[in-house]
Amino acid sequence: MKKNILYAQSGGVTPVINATACGVIETARINRDRIGTVYAGKDGIIGVLQEELIDTSKETKSDIAGLRHTPGGGFGSCRYKLRSIEESKREYQRLIEVLRAHDIGYFLYNGGGDSADTAYKVSQIGKKMGFPVNCIGVPKTIDNDLPVTDNCPGFGSVAKYVAVSIMEASLDVESMASSSTKVFILEVMGRHAGWIAAAGGLVAREEGDPPHLILFPEVPFKQREFLRKVRHAVENYGYCSVVVSEGVRNSRGQFLADAGTRDAFGHAQLGGVAPVVANIVREKLGYKYHWAVSDYLQRSARHVASKTDVDQAYAVGKAAVELALQGKSGVMPIIKRVSNNPYRWKIGETSLGRVANREKMMPKSYITDDGFGITPAARRYLAPLIRGEDYPPYDRDGLPKYVRMKKVLARKKLPEFDV
Amino acid sequence: MKKNILYAQSGGVTPVINATACGVIETARINRDRIGTVYAGKDGIIGVLQEELIDTSKETKSDIAGLRHTPGGGFGSCRYKLRSIEESKREYQRLIEVLRAHDIGYFLYNGGGDSADTAYKVSQIGKKMGFPVNCIGVPKTIDNDLPVTDNCPGFGSVAKYVAVSIMEASLDVESMASSSTKVFILEVMGRHAGWIAAAGGLVAREEGDPPHLILFPEVPFKQREFLRKVRHAVENYGYCSVVVSEGVRNSRGQFLADAGTRDAFGHAQLGGVAPVVANIVREKLGYKYHWAVSDYLQRSARHVASKTDVDQAYAVGKAAVELALQGKSGVMPIIKRVSNNPYRWKIGETSLGRVANREKMMPKSYITDDGFGITPAARRYLAPLIRGEDYPPYDRDGLPKYVRMKKVLARKKLPEFDV
Repeated sequence: MKKNILYAQSGGVTPVINATACGVIETARINRDRIGTVYAGKDGIIGVLQEELIDTSKETKSDIAGLRHTPGGGFGSCRYKLRSIEESKREYQRLIEVLRAHDIGYFLYNGGGDSADTAYKVSQIGKKMGFPVNCIGVPKTIDNDLPVTDNCPGFGSVAKYVAVSIMEASLDVESMASSSTKVFILEVMGRHAGWIAAAGGLVAREEGDPPHLILFPEVPFKQREFLRKVRHAVENYGYCSVVVSEGVRNSRGQFLADAGTRDAFGHAQLGGVAPVVANIVREKLGYKYHWAVSDYLQRSARHVASKTDVDQAYAVGKAAVELALQGKSGVMPIIKRVSNNPYRWKIGETSLGRVANREKMMPKSYITDDGFGITPAARRYLAPLIRGEDYPPYDRDGLPKYVRMKKVLARKKLPEFDV
Repeated sequence: MKKNILYAQSGGVTPVINATACGVIETARINRDRIGTVYAGKDGIIGVLQEELIDTSKETKSDIAGLRHTPGGGFGSCRYKLRSIEESKREYQRLIEVLRAHDIGYFLYNGGGDSADTAYKVSQIGKKMGFPVNCIGVPKTIDNDLPVTDNCPGFGSVAKYVAVSIMEASLDVESMASSSTKVFILEVMGRHAGWIAAAGGLVAREEGDPPHLILFPEVPFKQREFLRKVRHAVENYGYCSVVVSEGVRNSRGQFLADAGTRDAFGHAQLGGVAPVVANIVREKLGYKYHWAVSDYLQRSARHVASKTDVDQAYAVGKAAVELALQGKSGVMPIIKRVSNNPYRWKIGETSLGRVANREKMMPKSYITDDGFGITPAARRYLAPLIRGEDYPPYDRDGLPKYVRMKKVLARKKLPEFDV
């Protein structure tokens, strides 16, 4: 008797989370003889709880193929964390009811550490409630903070965006620095770990190459040292190019982004560490500056995705279905690095228990002693992840051909449920 | 007797100004029998005045070819405006001395309206001083504000970057809006004219498509209307995506970017209209928001350049050399639109007198009556300019192969000169 798949996207989306969805659905379609319908939670787990299940069999083959090159979350996502089984008992029970009502044999949850935890708990509670379901976590996060897996699908493309962007903007600044802007500051994501900021460092291959400074969340901001380095870059290379992580803190542990600016009413200004750093440069050194905040652009820039990342994102989706068909549960496909030179990877697996609720921080050995750059070890790790290009097709208007799911919902079978 | 070319880049650089340089140098090399050396002013006209002339014959064929896909200003640029002949007499005389000392027969000045004015004056003063030089203006500006020419090289690529970026970020926001960010604001360049912001409107092809609002410098910011539209988008499409031009002003004519925020010391915070608009949304509507400021990224994003733009940038460089060889002076090659459907263009020419010191504003008919969108006329004009992709080559590290000139200077022959 064929069972159905329930797939859901969770948390912040990435340029390639849909490539994983594509891998899931295409692999399930190939295995039509053993798998029924792939349902997708509308807006993630919230849709699942509300029994809003998108019937992906209503989507065309070419639209599903188009997911591979479409950013955002094709079926919608949400930030909604199920807590312990005791605290969120009502939600877990509802989840199992929904799975039972729609004959789900395989639950594939595509997200970060919290989602791995949820998938793990669903596998446990399903057994207890007499409805065993094969639960597979599928890794995704631009923050690259999942343990066990060598890297996380989503990160490589953001890393490539950041590296390409700081390289390009630095060429711009360099060409006019003798009479104009001398300091350029690019703010990137990474509240807790500096993986994304570190990627900017891949551009600095020779003495004098940008970025001249990286400000990591791992390193408390030391203003005097920072200013000394900025001045050194301007005096020696003509300009200074800076990548700053949104999560940089001062020595008292406060986010720099919160510490600086107030609006006209005296309210703390939310977000934007780049203008805070820029103001420090202006006040203390008087250099002309510019700053950019890439925000969601970095997280959705599928047009400059890393081919390595796209391939891996697809592969973990495919592997998730294969693991489910092998009868596995409580596991997650992971990326294993086989060799660095040449870079080779393969898909492995780990138990969700090893992934849930553990954050992988950037090793201290990846940051140079002065705290402003990346080491050769960091470069060896990061470089392969941004390799290769994988462009979306463009239409005749010069815009990417991104697909939009029809999102036809399966007929509801259960009473309403308040989330 | 073969004469040399002096080429200089002026003002803010673009993703494709080097494609123009490539067109100039490759065309001159083809015409080796009639043209001597192509010199390039180091950092633009400042380098010319200081007799810092880069000898481009020292650059390899493949590096010159690589200029076609390299952003920034390959020979450096500057913001330095020569004023009237009376006011800047000393500079004009020096310029002619430098041209004479290096046997320059053709002066090609690659910039916007000010540069056209300078090239025009050099052609006049050269004659008066008994050193006639063929002066050609070569159009470049991301602001698209030169008259006579249908559009300006540089604009199309920035337009494409803005359109692709708002399209991608909107897919991201849309997928999570039911439980997270509802309003996304992208700040783009355009201090005086809304051409760049208008390009974002190309993405909105169907009802509900992003961006839902564009804030133009041409339309005074009306807060109540703005908030009404934001709420309408959130209530009807689930989220609201906004493109805001840095040049938006309030009804008293002040830049919105200056009006809002102060730093911890009470100083007006420089730059960043996006956070100001975001704060208005937060205070008045309470929606969760995100904002991005693309700043120099938009102006250097060669990785997502418009092929139309690259081709046109190259073509005006080529045409400039050909006009010079035809003995023309005081002229500028321009882009003429031959037809819209299919889009066809050719190179024409105009006199610099018609271009100098005139700004082309965006026609009123390009902005919808409500002031927040673009009309079909704007779409017909803008759409062809972002068509086609023209990717740079990437190296095996996954980074674009951008070239760097060797910048070997010609031997100086004149006394020093203070700029």
